[in-house]
Amino acid sequence: MSTRTEPQRPPLARWLATTNDVTRIFLAAGRVPGLINMAGGLPEPATFPVTEIAAVVGDVVRRHAQEALAYAPAEGLPELRDALAERFGSQTLTLTRANVLVTSGGMQGLDLIGKVLLEQGALIAGQFPTYLGALDAWRPRSPTFRNMVLEDTAFDAVAALEGAQFAYTVPNFSNPTGKLVSVETRRALVEAAHRTGTWLVEDDPYGTLYYDSEPLPRLIDLSAQMHPGEPYAGPVVYMGTLSKEIAPGLRIGWVIAAPELIEALAMAKLGADVCTSGLTQRVALGALEAGLIEKIRPTILDTYRQRRDALCAAMSEHLGEWLEWEVPVGGMFVWAVGRDPSLDTDLLLPHAMAEGVCVAPSSAFDAAGLNRRALRINFTLNDADRLTEGVKRLARAFATMQAGRN
Amino acid sequence: MSTRTEPQRPPLARWLATTNDVTRIFLAAGRVPGLINMAGGLPEPATFPVTEIAAVVGDVVRRHAQEALAYAPAEGLPELRDALAERFGSQTLTLTRANVLVTSGGMQGLDLIGKVLLEQGALIAGQFPTYLGALDAWRPRSPTFRNMVLEDTAFDAVAALEGAQFAYTVPNFSNPTGKLVSVETRRALVEAAHRTGTWLVEDDPYGTLYYDSEPLPRLIDLSAQMHPGEPYAGPVVYMGTLSKEIAPGLRIGWVIAAPELIEALAMAKLGADVCTSGLTQRVALGALEAGLIEKIRPTILDTYRQRRDALCAAMSEHLGEWLEWEVPVGGMFVWAVGRDPSLDTDLLLPHAMAEGVCVAPSSAFDAAGLNRRALRINFTLNDADRLTEGVKRLARAFATMQAGRN
Repeated sequence: MSTRTEPQRPPLARWLATTNDVTRIFLAAGRVPGLINMAGGLPEPATFPVTEIAAVVGDVVRRHAQEALAYAPAEGLPELRDALAERFGSQTLTLTRANVLVTSGGMQGLDLIGKVLLEQGALIAGQFPTYLGALDAWRPRSPTFRNMVLEDTAFDAVAALEGAQFAYTVPNFSNPTGKLVSVETRRALVEAAHRTGTWLVEDDPYGTLYYDSEPLPRLIDLSAQMHPGEPYAGPVVYMGTLSKEIAPGLRIGWVIAAPELIEALAMAKLGADVCTSGLTQRVALGALEAGLIEKIRPTILDTYRQRRDALCAAMSEHLGEWLEWEVPVGGMFVWAVGRDPSLDTDLLLPHAMAEGVCVAPSSAFDAAGLNRRALRINFTLNDADRLTEGVKRLARAFATMQAGRN
Repeated sequence: MSTRTEPQRPPLARWLATTNDVTRIFLAAGRVPGLINMAGGLPEPATFPVTEIAAVVGDVVRRHAQEALAYAPAEGLPELRDALAERFGSQTLTLTRANVLVTSGGMQGLDLIGKVLLEQGALIAGQFPTYLGALDAWRPRSPTFRNMVLEDTAFDAVAALEGAQFAYTVPNFSNPTGKLVSVETRRALVEAAHRTGTWLVEDDPYGTLYYDSEPLPRLIDLSAQMHPGEPYAGPVVYMGTLSKEIAPGLRIGWVIAAPELIEALAMAKLGADVCTSGLTQRVALGALEAGLIEKIRPTILDTYRQRRDALCAAMSEHLGEWLEWEVPVGGMFVWAVGRDPSLDTDLLLPHAMAEGVCVAPSSAFDAAGLNRRALRINFTLNDADRLTEGVKRLARAFATMQAGRN
């Protein structure tokens, strides 16, 4: 009997057929020799505080071995929740550990939000193009999306949020566009959330990656100002991660929100992975206590600022014929739009891969895959020389594609 | 403006209202001073190989810091996948890394299985009572269940599996009943899976916790015997974990299955937590390479065998009036059924908590919450003296409940 004579297996869930495989191309690109990967959102590994983490890990295993090796509470280790509450709390934003859930990376927060807030086909208000990972997380629930054009002067936040289960925003350097949401629009979103009741998800992985200015106020801080002094119970659901500020391999993120939502998310987390590793939670706590984020931040900011400038300079020299873009004031990406409205960056990708460079086509960031005119180019992973070489390769890919068409 | 004047928030997903809070009672019980927790499925922390893990962690951070701190592939670190393929492969069961997905604990495998195999309301063939965590993982998809009574002499495996998306089994010491599925029934299940095409999930967290005999063959081994020598592409989905053999705090589990399913599960994992921590994966690999499982297994088996015997002896002395049970030949639990068919162990729980002991009522393990007559009693976490004291407290809880009734 051969497997070929066996009956068909039951079908896979339908959402799997609707996913695109760009994420896997990105991850695979990291392992192709010689390829310059400007597609993913990867930090520069040289910024990882290896020596300091090694010291923290040794200390954790010596002093907290049992806690590191046993099951942790679903909500996270109490000391880490307290440390995060203290880190993000302020005179107006009153936080306790009841406001904090530790997650297995920032991504898990998105998955859990989907589990507790989405019925099949539920409505989400989103910024499009939007974070690929958020689309991936929610795809199994087949949500419907309402697009919010936050930079539109006529943007009506109440109309945008009314009736949605939640609004999903990345106010600081939206992935993929790198756009910064203005203070005025932040206020409008927060006021609309308070008025409509709709949850307002503030996904903030790049919140401290400001290269040219001071950070704008967070949505959750603006929300807390509406009820100063009260323990936070408002509509903003703030999500953060250590992936960009320390190292992604720890897989430590957090959600800060009203206690009622944290409780529901913890219930969903029990059914997702029971708890986040006590070992990595203890390492994260040790890193926070040792001030590692503050210690390495200047180096991260200098490194990424220089790389952004190198990328944009090379793009001006080699890609201005095909693309236009704004220099982002923070984050990890340049969003470049085709001068020719008929540009299809899905078709460009194989040419780029053949030239030895990988970038992210815009279709990946659109629930319907319709936006084909733009590219997301990462500038954090590669140094200036490789970024310049990558841009030259990309220019050759454009030329090849154009030659093929003519 | 006060929060009380704000509009209602959008409703939480409906499945949250159908969950029971027994899991949280279990986890909370671990933090009540003086309470004897015989409810959860926790290993004895004294068995954690703390010194050895400390050595492995130090080595990992020195030698593989970048890999430990960067994003890992969604499928897991290649070296760990290879090590697991080698560990579970045999002359008949041909495995490569394409058959292996590393998960964030065994629980995540159940969550991912639900994501890739369940549409809303899909059919699962299950053993009831069944693992609470599996019910939790799948509850957001509102599946329907068909009960398989595996110990029934008239059990018809083909009829049980036909038309189901998958069958969920814990052949070794089913949680909560501690029952061992016989070799004959294992063969019948595997043959039915090959015949019907239905996926056959073999959840095996207790697979090496045999106290009185040698382990029976795994379903995946029986399945491979039907196509000897071929790379494994059959219907069995084998799930394991380091939580019971090394330590749960690492949150390392795995799924071994046909490559097509591993690919789909990896896609779902991208949207769940991107990847499992490189640090904990490297520690797991180091633990496997150092033979830690084999090193600590004799101590684990001796400890748990003695505790099982102590628990059953104390139960015979103090609880025989109310309960009957079989001595389990492995696993972590005794399943005790009320002699009185009208026993409601949900009502017993508050009496037990008041006496200072926590056990798991049977309603938790039944999708409909209807089975109220039994208790799951864990014997791995507490030593013989505490188990005996816990049983005495439980006997007092029975007496109090009965007194209240009369």
